[in-house]
Amino acid sequence: MDPFRLEGDAVLLLDQTRLPAEEVWIPVRDAETMREAITALRVRGAPAIGIAAALALVLEADRAAAGSGRDALAALERAAGRLRTARPTAVNLAWAVDRVVAAARRAADSREAGGLSATVRREALRMWEEDRAASRAMAEHGAAFFASERRFLTHCNTGGLATGGGGTALGVLIELHRRGRPVEVWATETRPLLQGARLTAYELQRAGVPVRLLVDGAAAFAIRSEGIEAVVVGADRVAANGDVANKVGTFALALAARDASIPFVVVAPTSSLDPDCPGAEAIPIEQRGSGEVTSVRGQPTAPEGVPTYNPAFDVTPARLVTAIITERGVWRPGDLPPGPR
Amino acid sequence: MDPFRLEGDAVLLLDQTRLPAEEVWIPVRDAETMREAITALRVRGAPAIGIAAALALVLEADRAAAGSGRDALAALERAAGRLRTARPTAVNLAWAVDRVVAAARRAADSREAGGLSATVRREALRMWEEDRAASRAMAEHGAAFFASERRFLTHCNTGGLATGGGGTALGVLIELHRRGRPVEVWATETRPLLQGARLTAYELQRAGVPVRLLVDGAAAFAIRSEGIEAVVVGADRVAANGDVANKVGTFALALAARDASIPFVVVAPTSSLDPDCPGAEAIPIEQRGSGEVTSVRGQPTAPEGVPTYNPAFDVTPARLVTAIITERGVWRPGDLPPGPR
Repeated sequence: MDPFRLEGDAVLLLDQTRLPAEEVWIPVRDAETMREAITALRVRGAPAIGIAAALALVLEADRAAAGSGRDALAALERAAGRLRTARPTAVNLAWAVDRVVAAARRAADSREAGGLSATVRREALRMWEEDRAASRAMAEHGAAFFASERRFLTHCNTGGLATGGGGTALGVLIELHRRGRPVEVWATETRPLLQGARLTAYELQRAGVPVRLLVDGAAAFAIRSEGIEAVVVGADRVAANGDVANKVGTFALALAARDASIPFVVVAPTSSLDPDCPGAEAIPIEQRGSGEVTSVRGQPTAPEGVPTYNPAFDVTPARLVTAIITERGVWRPGDLPPGPR
Repeated sequence: MDPFRLEGDAVLLLDQTRLPAEEVWIPVRDAETMREAITALRVRGAPAIGIAAALALVLEADRAAAGSGRDALAALERAAGRLRTARPTAVNLAWAVDRVVAAARRAADSREAGGLSATVRREALRMWEEDRAASRAMAEHGAAFFASERRFLTHCNTGGLATGGGGTALGVLIELHRRGRPVEVWATETRPLLQGARLTAYELQRAGVPVRLLVDGAAAFAIRSEGIEAVVVGADRVAANGDVANKVGTFALALAARDASIPFVVVAPTSSLDPDCPGAEAIPIEQRGSGEVTSVRGQPTAPEGVPTYNPAFDVTPARLVTAIITERGVWRPGDLPPGPR
């Protein structure tokens, strides 16, 4: 299931904050609306927000094409700057925006056929297609990597809703199911925003994969005592040394996997690798508002005004990571392939 | 703050499921109503449910006293049997019920002055007073143990609402605050039933102790990167080998504390020690209904009908426990004091 579609002068975006209760498609017609959608997590998942931002730039380039070449490029760069900073942790967002802008600049310099609008559209659609292909390749590599495991635990949502294709970690597990492996997925609910409960359980039910939902705090005990054979997660940014930023709660799962001597595996496209980032300390961790912690789906859960600590991500040190599966194969965290830059 | 009061022919029980929004006191007049209140977590916390059950037996003994001695004891034993099995994990519940019944039997054998009713009342009130004294003693020992730490992380609720006295783990932290230590408590929300968000944040705000609330999944990262100096929790049952059953999520905190080389400390009265239980495998872990995981405060959070894994407790192995603070002093998990039996 795709989280967005490009139709005429709009990107239609599935509002993931309203899943699974309602499937509402929002028409996005400019970068500012897309920025809001990314910030509010209407679209989320590291690969998905990269592609979504690139598609928003297609709309901006179409609009800007009415003006002069120089003005059009400047307008595109302004829109790109706004999108690039919508969320800080997933490196795919900056990577995707930068790649579209670089293509636009090359087109402007070379007066490429079709102009800015066609160039931006071509580049965005190429990235989307590459992301789809990356999902397929990760699913292949992952399915080969897990030769016999049946009971997996995953965190947050890393399926079709989180990418332009079939997913990262969840894509691997669904691929195993497709191949006839009797896979069972234990999915953490993923507070505060419940992407596991709302999105992963929903995607797995639709795919016919047996799923069990658990609160985040129960995961370590499940890993220890319920025969979980591997923990498989996505990533928002993988540093050069193999440290992995991912949805908050991931680090605790890696510690539990290590304690139980089972693999802790990250599945992420190379667009999530950041070779310019040396390690954990250099990864910007997004801190989000208190309301996400002091309420759930609009219901208050805590005394009014209580201060919170609400990082959207945490960092799992490379020493706890068994393998990183990318579209280019399976890597050890100390021996990553060159990143996209 | 006491979670219950004995008034005339009723135990008035603060309905903790409705905190912090409302302070509703429920009159409990028989063991069956108390059993329901314990099962539904209207009263919770290992020491508190022991005392609450003992107080319910006071009501039953008063009622039974109208009949013959033998019938009265049999009626009390029936009520005790129902209360004893309301929840399986916290050993305090069985311990408290058994102690009241033993006193009642001794009274029946010896035709003790005042009869069954007076004996049961005397024993229950004595246990309550002992629990209050235990809270005070644990607070003293704990305050001495933490000679310099300021930033603590705790899980679930272990304050006045969880005991007949001032609390276990939270009692220690509040005592440090009373002594002028600039203590800061990071409190996990404690899904599924949010005792951390609803009760711990509430108790700490009332006591004037600075508190920060975080989702359970963020705790490991906080411990690693935010200068937490100790993790302090309660216990529902401590096995003879030092394994500790406590609210689900505790095990993950112990792993994170070990990884960050900070102390993981359990505070529990000796009524939570179970010398008859050799270790983790022998501790019955309560599994609760799916609705607690698939909804929050009545709001659905997951697709309908998704299967869940919902243990109310987990077990932290003794190897991860730095110290166990009881009312009789500070112990290493491998060298526990004799239990209450």
